[in-house]
Amino acid sequence: MAGESRNWVLMVTAQTPTNIAVIKYWGKRDENLILPINDSISVTLDPNHLCTTTTVAVSPSFKQDRMWLNRKEISLSGGRYQNCLREIRNRACDVEDKKKGIKILKEDWGKLHLHIASYNNFPTAAGLASSAAGFACLVFALAKLMNLKEDQSQLSAIARQGSGSACRSLYGGFVKWIMGKEENGSDSLAVQLTDEKQWDDLVIVIAVVSSRQKETSSTSGMRESVKTSLLLQHRAKEIVPKRILQMEEAIKNCDFTSFAQLTCADSNQFHAVCMDSCPPIFYMNDTSHRIINIAEKWNRSEETPQVAYTFDAGPNAVLIARNRQTAALLIQRLLYYFPPNSDDLNSYVIGDKSILQDAGLTGMKDVEGLPPPPETKDNIPSQKYKGDVSHFICTRPGRGPVLLADESLALLDSENGLPK
Amino acid sequence: MAGESRNWVLMVTAQTPTNIAVIKYWGKRDENLILPINDSISVTLDPNHLCTTTTVAVSPSFKQDRMWLNRKEISLSGGRYQNCLREIRNRACDVEDKKKGIKILKEDWGKLHLHIASYNNFPTAAGLASSAAGFACLVFALAKLMNLKEDQSQLSAIARQGSGSACRSLYGGFVKWIMGKEENGSDSLAVQLTDEKQWDDLVIVIAVVSSRQKETSSTSGMRESVKTSLLLQHRAKEIVPKRILQMEEAIKNCDFTSFAQLTCADSNQFHAVCMDSCPPIFYMNDTSHRIINIAEKWNRSEETPQVAYTFDAGPNAVLIARNRQTAALLIQRLLYYFPPNSDDLNSYVIGDKSILQDAGLTGMKDVEGLPPPPETKDNIPSQKYKGDVSHFICTRPGRGPVLLADESLALLDSENGLPK
Repeated sequence: MAGESRNWVLMVTAQTPTNIAVIKYWGKRDENLILPINDSISVTLDPNHLCTTTTVAVSPSFKQDRMWLNRKEISLSGGRYQNCLREIRNRACDVEDKKKGIKILKEDWGKLHLHIASYNNFPTAAGLASSAAGFACLVFALAKLMNLKEDQSQLSAIARQGSGSACRSLYGGFVKWIMGKEENGSDSLAVQLTDEKQWDDLVIVIAVVSSRQKETSSTSGMRESVKTSLLLQHRAKEIVPKRILQMEEAIKNCDFTSFAQLTCADSNQFHAVCMDSCPPIFYMNDTSHRIINIAEKWNRSEETPQVAYTFDAGPNAVLIARNRQTAALLIQRLLYYFPPNSDDLNSYVIGDKSILQDAGLTGMKDVEGLPPPPETKDNIPSQKYKGDVSHFICTRPGRGPVLLADESLALLDSENGLPK
Repeated sequence: MAGESRNWVLMVTAQTPTNIAVIKYWGKRDENLILPINDSISVTLDPNHLCTTTTVAVSPSFKQDRMWLNRKEISLSGGRYQNCLREIRNRACDVEDKKKGIKILKEDWGKLHLHIASYNNFPTAAGLASSAAGFACLVFALAKLMNLKEDQSQLSAIARQGSGSACRSLYGGFVKWIMGKEENGSDSLAVQLTDEKQWDDLVIVIAVVSSRQKETSSTSGMRESVKTSLLLQHRAKEIVPKRILQMEEAIKNCDFTSFAQLTCADSNQFHAVCMDSCPPIFYMNDTSHRIINIAEKWNRSEETPQVAYTFDAGPNAVLIARNRQTAALLIQRLLYYFPPNSDDLNSYVIGDKSILQDAGLTGMKDVEGLPPPPETKDNIPSQKYKGDVSHFICTRPGRGPVLLADESLALLDSENGLPK
């Protein structure tokens, strides 16, 4: 290890997307290595709207590994962080920064400490896959810093050991996590099915649902399901393998009808397995059910799916619209049933606001003037559920991890390696 | 057929209980004969609190078959009524009432018309198995009127053709509906496992949950599940047969721990299968989920189940307490979380009110003074859900159908055969 002084800091900043599974991961066959009981498929969400930014730094002046998440220092002692750090250090290579006159040899990495700062541009632990984006970004950034020679798939197998679904955030577009067969987990990794440009008319609307319930974490929830659900093994062994093939075909052909049917059915089956666990796990609430009913009624009235829905381990709905036109019709329906509590439409629908404009919704007057959706016309005036949705995020499928070269975007100070 | 005049009316009045399945019936293999895809087991509820009373009458003066349900005339043209009436008429025998000087020969029944009046002492179609009690009572009363020689099991196979679960209301105590193998359904009938006196310390509390949702009928719901759920066949073929054996064992041994585990697991699995249907069916709502969570938390804190829960095709909870002591503790918990909207405790907890007294709850002051259940003590003050439960019904396992000899209890006038 060579540098002009012990005070140099070498840094890398990366940005990594979150992802949402359309064929669900639920159940581990190995709790420590995080090996799943079935393959899963996800769509990566546009990092412009939902992403984690992570700066990793190394310096001979650092006394210990430290990490700050959303500006608050957190412990790195957990097994999941330790597994990722160990796996990456084991693969570290020589690094040279000629401009700064820094050279770190492969064997030096074991003696050097790291500072890590991570920031989510969306609420952490609100059921928006923050740990997936977080671990993917940590692994990706450290791999760059330490000059790992592994490809994205091999990195995904490291990220997997931090949070299973994190492995799917190493790619953009549609991604498959192959469960693998090896006991050591070396073949349990992510591969890209198609990049985000292949099927670029999809629009995604996330309904962040207000909830006062304390939720079961997905880690403990899936452990309970594996232990107690009599339906889970049947799902993993008999149903998912076929669905994976069908979903790959649907994605390859940009076949929205098949994609939507598989996505909705698999989300519902995942929640069915949760309910079949003992004690039963309820992630969806009445608002989630209402959103499903709105989507199902609309899809049926159009005879072909306009929107797919999927729910992870929480009440938030992720709605995937066929294209921009249907996304506009979708947001009209959503705002009709779930008008904002306040008059601030601007903070109620965030992300890609152009969908609002397409829908002709530029202010609260437009929202109040929305007619009931035509598919409800024979019914009694439909009830509205003001306040049941916290806000909506409009986004789309997006790209995989990127490095942020602009040092001004780093979360750590380049002089002292502490949070800015 | 002989009588002093054409104006005689011959009547029979019967009372039949409702039942709640503890191993669920969900899915038909024959829609017309109502043949199920698995065995089911139920407990019959005390007819003092929930029952149907039906008067059936025959008279040469009646011009057509007519029926009144809860004092309102309804059509008998539906296939289910027609199937029951045909099957019973086919088995009718000679009837003689010497006192009245009436003699009806076997072959006369085809020419005579019937009047039927039925009354539920609980809200119809509130998810409280009114059609089960109703068809059981219709078949039982007609069988008595027409002097059928068939035993209760054989009658249950007729009631089954009116409403599947009706076959289980022909007996008190615990009842098994054997799915049978015959194509004509002749061996798909109910048998009594134990009568209501065998396990007589159970107490049942029904939470009638307020709901504004229009629900999927169980008939169309189970049709959708059979068509679309990939988990249903696995449940019916692989899981239920083992559970039936375990449940029979638990009932035989009055083994509450095993009984409660099986009851809760099977209710949850039935709702899981509903959710796995396409479109998904949600019968439980947030209030149902809260009641489950209250029961599960309490059971876990006691290490052995105090209460079992089960939900049919609606949000109402049927809670089965181990004995009177635990029932008192249960009603305390329920009233703590779900206090009445009004001050009228007397109309909020109906049925066997002695449970309220055991619980020391004689007025609203006592309800307001209820401390949080001890199992919540480490938590932040628990939320209350006033208005989310419409009312509670306290009851117990009960007897099967009975004849009501007292003519003053008949629902039809003995002179003209019309509703009183």
